[in-house]
Amino acid sequence: MLNILITNDDSIHAKGLRSLIAIARPFGNVTVVAPDQPMSGMGHAITTNRPLRLRLLKEETNYREYSCSGTPVDCVKMGLHVVFKGQKVDLILSGINHGSNASSNVLYSGTMGAAIEGSMEGVKSIGFSLLDYDHDADFSQGAGFISEIIAKIIEMPILKGVTLNVNIPNAPKGDIKGIKVCTQADAYWKEDYIARKDPWSGDYYWLTGEFVNGELVEGTDIHALEQNYVSVVPVQHDLTAFDVLDKLTHWSK
Amino acid sequence: MLNILITNDDSIHAKGLRSLIAIARPFGNVTVVAPDQPMSGMGHAITTNRPLRLRLLKEETNYREYSCSGTPVDCVKMGLHVVFKGQKVDLILSGINHGSNASSNVLYSGTMGAAIEGSMEGVKSIGFSLLDYDHDADFSQGAGFISEIIAKIIEMPILKGVTLNVNIPNAPKGDIKGIKVCTQADAYWKEDYIARKDPWSGDYYWLTGEFVNGELVEGTDIHALEQNYVSVVPVQHDLTAFDVLDKLTHWSK
Repeated sequence: MLNILITNDDSIHAKGLRSLIAIARPFGNVTVVAPDQPMSGMGHAITTNRPLRLRLLKEETNYREYSCSGTPVDCVKMGLHVVFKGQKVDLILSGINHGSNASSNVLYSGTMGAAIEGSMEGVKSIGFSLLDYDHDADFSQGAGFISEIIAKIIEMPILKGVTLNVNIPNAPKGDIKGIKVCTQADAYWKEDYIARKDPWSGDYYWLTGEFVNGELVEGTDIHALEQNYVSVVPVQHDLTAFDVLDKLTHWSK
Repeated sequence: MLNILITNDDSIHAKGLRSLIAIARPFGNVTVVAPDQPMSGMGHAITTNRPLRLRLLKEETNYREYSCSGTPVDCVKMGLHVVFKGQKVDLILSGINHGSNASSNVLYSGTMGAAIEGSMEGVKSIGFSLLDYDHDADFSQGAGFISEIIAKIIEMPILKGVTLNVNIPNAPKGDIKGIKVCTQADAYWKEDYIARKDPWSGDYYWLTGEFVNGELVEGTDIHALEQNYVSVVPVQHDLTAFDVLDKLTHWSK
């Protein structure tokens, strides 16, 4: 039976995590190691300046559930090196995130940080997100597609150093048209900070912002999602910008 | 005069930050926005669940210094959107980090997270690191190379979506042989957790690990650093794994 490690960034209490567990259990032994508190926006952060806690919450046939006091990436590291401790893990699933991990959100996302860590450790890894921020979002709409993608990844050879970034449009079940393999769109957050005064007249700031799509380019994840397709972007952790190397090589001396 | 924004991940109190400020000031107006506490390993994390503080610590001709309660990426966002508030920023410099940001460390590094955020916001950005974890490390050894790289980047057109990841070997000044433009080496952390008991018999874990170089491949940052060269890797935030797209396109339907 396959060993499957599941994590997320919305915490062990999130509805999206429960949906992913239900979808994954038919595929193998499921071990959950998820943050004990919300960790949205934690990207690839790890905890180095304080020790971590791991708490076994549930154990039954082919299922274990732990909470972890660290980031999503810490959850993957502790899952592999404390819980599984060298035992083979066949698949890492992260999510289902409440919100979007499309385009440049992949860099801020704790869900995707965890999945990328999985592929860095040599394990097939997928991050899932539903484009609905509601904590009570309806995750059933994408369940069939998620099952299908998990089945495909289990069957195929590992894509070394590659993670899948899967986003599900916020559309009623029958309206999702299918799957599109995509590139990462060039969209960005236009930030704005709201300044407030504390009771002692000190300033503090809330990060707010608006996600701005550039030109809607066909073949990108944002384009696919706007057309009601599930987007699948293969993501790598080698960040080398190979196409500009030749503009800089004359620096070498 | 150029507007230069400086940040780091070792906090406003770090020696490496002071060295970078001294190197940068001859190039323009310097504004520092750096974390008020150590933020190593924070990667591309942002703060979304609590408000942020910004504190003006120093202001003199062509120089301002702020501490920020957020992550390195928060520092860049607040620098651009609160401190500069739409005024043009010409260059973002991050570091000098105490330690290595070579190879896959680029993903965990708050120093590099900040620099990557800079390029995502359309500003020329460079992250610097010295391969010496000592808080009292000697940053003078790389100063000449850092000046040279800053001068080159100021002169050339912007490389859209690209950040430079610059690492300086821990070698005496005269022993550094020069600069090499490199790709990101395929090395990784082999983790180990040290388990301890708290006074109430509860388990807690310290993340430890050893950085393992794979085969030393010529042309990579780790190879250049081992040969006492300053490594420069152009880094991009488009994470699409273009070379595996065709292995997945048959999924699209």
